[in-house]
Amino acid sequence: MRAVELIAKKRDGGTHTRAEIEFLVNGYVAGQIPDYQVAAWLMAVCLVGMTGDETGALTGAMIDSGATIDLSSLAGPLVDKHSTGGVGDKVSLILAPLAAACGVQVPMMSGRALGHTGGTLDKLESIAGYSTALSAERFRLIIDECGYAMTGQSAEIVPADRLLYALRDVTATVESIPLITASIMSKKFAEGADALVFDVKTGRGAFMKEIDDSRSLAQSLIDTGRSLGRGVVTVITRMDEPLGRMIGNFLEVEESMRCLRGSAPTDGLSDDLIGVTIRLTAWMLVAAGVESAIEDAEAVCRARLADGSAYERFMRNVELQGGDPAELERQIGSRRAAHAVTIDAVRGGYVTAIDAYAFGLAGVGLGVGRNKTSDEVRPDVGFELHAKQGDRVAAGQPLYTIHADSADAASDAAHRLVDAYAIDDTAIAAKAPVVEEHAAL
Amino acid sequence: MRAVELIAKKRDGGTHTRAEIEFLVNGYVAGQIPDYQVAAWLMAVCLVGMTGDETGALTGAMIDSGATIDLSSLAGPLVDKHSTGGVGDKVSLILAPLAAACGVQVPMMSGRALGHTGGTLDKLESIAGYSTALSAERFRLIIDECGYAMTGQSAEIVPADRLLYALRDVTATVESIPLITASIMSKKFAEGADALVFDVKTGRGAFMKEIDDSRSLAQSLIDTGRSLGRGVVTVITRMDEPLGRMIGNFLEVEESMRCLRGSAPTDGLSDDLIGVTIRLTAWMLVAAGVESAIEDAEAVCRARLADGSAYERFMRNVELQGGDPAELERQIGSRRAAHAVTIDAVRGGYVTAIDAYAFGLAGVGLGVGRNKTSDEVRPDVGFELHAKQGDRVAAGQPLYTIHADSADAASDAAHRLVDAYAIDDTAIAAKAPVVEEHAAL
Repeated sequence: MRAVELIAKKRDGGTHTRAEIEFLVNGYVAGQIPDYQVAAWLMAVCLVGMTGDETGALTGAMIDSGATIDLSSLAGPLVDKHSTGGVGDKVSLILAPLAAACGVQVPMMSGRALGHTGGTLDKLESIAGYSTALSAERFRLIIDECGYAMTGQSAEIVPADRLLYALRDVTATVESIPLITASIMSKKFAEGADALVFDVKTGRGAFMKEIDDSRSLAQSLIDTGRSLGRGVVTVITRMDEPLGRMIGNFLEVEESMRCLRGSAPTDGLSDDLIGVTIRLTAWMLVAAGVESAIEDAEAVCRARLADGSAYERFMRNVELQGGDPAELERQIGSRRAAHAVTIDAVRGGYVTAIDAYAFGLAGVGLGVGRNKTSDEVRPDVGFELHAKQGDRVAAGQPLYTIHADSADAASDAAHRLVDAYAIDDTAIAAKAPVVEEHAAL
Repeated sequence: MRAVELIAKKRDGGTHTRAEIEFLVNGYVAGQIPDYQVAAWLMAVCLVGMTGDETGALTGAMIDSGATIDLSSLAGPLVDKHSTGGVGDKVSLILAPLAAACGVQVPMMSGRALGHTGGTLDKLESIAGYSTALSAERFRLIIDECGYAMTGQSAEIVPADRLLYALRDVTATVESIPLITASIMSKKFAEGADALVFDVKTGRGAFMKEIDDSRSLAQSLIDTGRSLGRGVVTVITRMDEPLGRMIGNFLEVEESMRCLRGSAPTDGLSDDLIGVTIRLTAWMLVAAGVESAIEDAEAVCRARLADGSAYERFMRNVELQGGDPAELERQIGSRRAAHAVTIDAVRGGYVTAIDAYAFGLAGVGLGVGRNKTSDEVRPDVGFELHAKQGDRVAAGQPLYTIHADSADAASDAAHRLVDAYAIDDTAIAAKAPVVEEHAAL
């Protein structure tokens, strides 16, 4: 087998065999196939595409390129969720303890904020003492103890993805559905999950802004899961306005804790967040075989929120991962950056749109997220929304509050957000946060 | 400007500016843009394409990457011909002295045999003493003296093409019309020609086997010449059966000399060769402005063949490039490898096809051509055809003679050629060797 022939095959629209894909991945990781040949192949894949079986073979070869986490001693079933990333997306913080409270074990490996999207690890680390750098053994023990654990990806897992991602980043081959699919799935399955639920975001605050692209990714995830013989559910959800009412690190921990508490917030500002989270968690229960009907699974989730057992799991996890639950509860509502500026509506009417992308970028300016992986994030900055899409506001009524380290940073964010709220005389029809769902279990 | 953004632009179907293409070519030659980025870009170009202006900009940037030959002190007009390569294609050996005899100066840089196609340099070097490694100064002097000179490409000319070609070869990006166009044109215009005539071969013995691909290349050459402000003519010619009656190195020199002599061969076996050569040479006269009508130019070419002046130019060139004209004439008809085997028709009928590709590959086995650039070729081996497409043959009548260094090599060639001649009861309609022509002057 020769690399140049495999590149030509893909260039000409051919379909690779499993052996061909393993040859390319193994050869690249072993340093036997040079960067330039892999770069040409990646571009051919970008422009020609891959079938579900090819993507499955790529995912499998990537998983096999490094260590995998063995969680077979756990009772299971083990199910994880992955989101393609959004603004105000704190779903994982609520979903993991909720799923655990419903009898699913959740081995969650998360990422950090990059660009306009937030990162679960950064949010969790805003909890004083909370460690997201768990050894494989500690990861397993914490899951066993409280039903879930949250960690970052270790360097031993899927080295092929690190190599390929670095090459894709400099060769304009990031935007490829099969390559994105293999990158996501290889990491998720290497961490030990039996089945996966994917939250594929769509809209202006998402990585994929067009519904067709989100659909293609969802289809590719389903096809690849099928090829790998693993259960996969995809839920396409809207990411036009920020999810819930808070955008930040500790601010999002706070909102998550509010949602996890027995009584849901009554201001309506977190309704979209709660709806999406319950739906995704319910799919995890179905994927795990804990429930067979999605409606029944949703009812179980609501019950575990209402009876406080999900909140209990959360606090137990905080303790196990190094945080101080009592101190955390004391900080609620008070841990804020020095400068708070509230922006009011300049006119009355209906909020017809809130630009999640603009809030995401403005958040990077405040220190919620980062432009480069080497940037530091701040725990106590961000935004608090006082009105969501569809709400009626009067002129002068508060729209959102900026929490910033300095008056300049607050002013800078306000300038970036000058057009972020669209207010009109006519109400728009409400759109359900879940667009469509597919399951291959 | 960043390379990754330019790769993304091409991936997404964008059109590069001249400055962008210069940035890529100059950055690559200077070692500032790495192989892997150029490889990804080349694959994007392969799959997305380039406009005539983009290809012109690429050609220009490649020419500017190295030295060019200054022939401005010559009287001119300077016109060259390039062929995409075929089997038995000795057109250059006849065309160059013929064009010179008609008042055009021909600065011809040629290549060597590779794969199933022959190489002009290898053919010329079968003439004892003939040197194809001319200095730029000697090249210019010989053109001045006899109207044409034949040389190989020097390392200083178009270094970007050598770098890009080596990368294309290992990244499956050779087969791209704009990249082929820029590679051909940059070398040809860097050698000092004012206008170019292209012989774009089509058929089973050609690099491009489908007429649509040949048409695309011809169109790209025309568009790129227009973008560069240089005169370009493309002539698409058939390469289904070998051109003329001889395939080999010295064998093709012999056939060329026969055609160059005042009286054309009367056996009809070289008619296709003579027809194509006169047509291409006539276009050179038109491109040079020596004649304005192609029919008049053809008449001039026939006259210069008939009056012996083209043959005279050839013998003068042999002398100037180090050969011995008298010794060369003595070798005609006698310089043959040790083993000659003639293959006869097993049945009678009409020759409906002669597989040029099979003859090309069998020729590599004999030593006419080479598989790797480091292989040596032999001067006196090859094939002599006794019947061409359309001819009627009787069972037992000779079809072709193999000239080989050993009985084994001859037998091996005969085995490879067992299906090379197709003979049928019904004659096929004759096809004109010239398929179509385009001129942008």
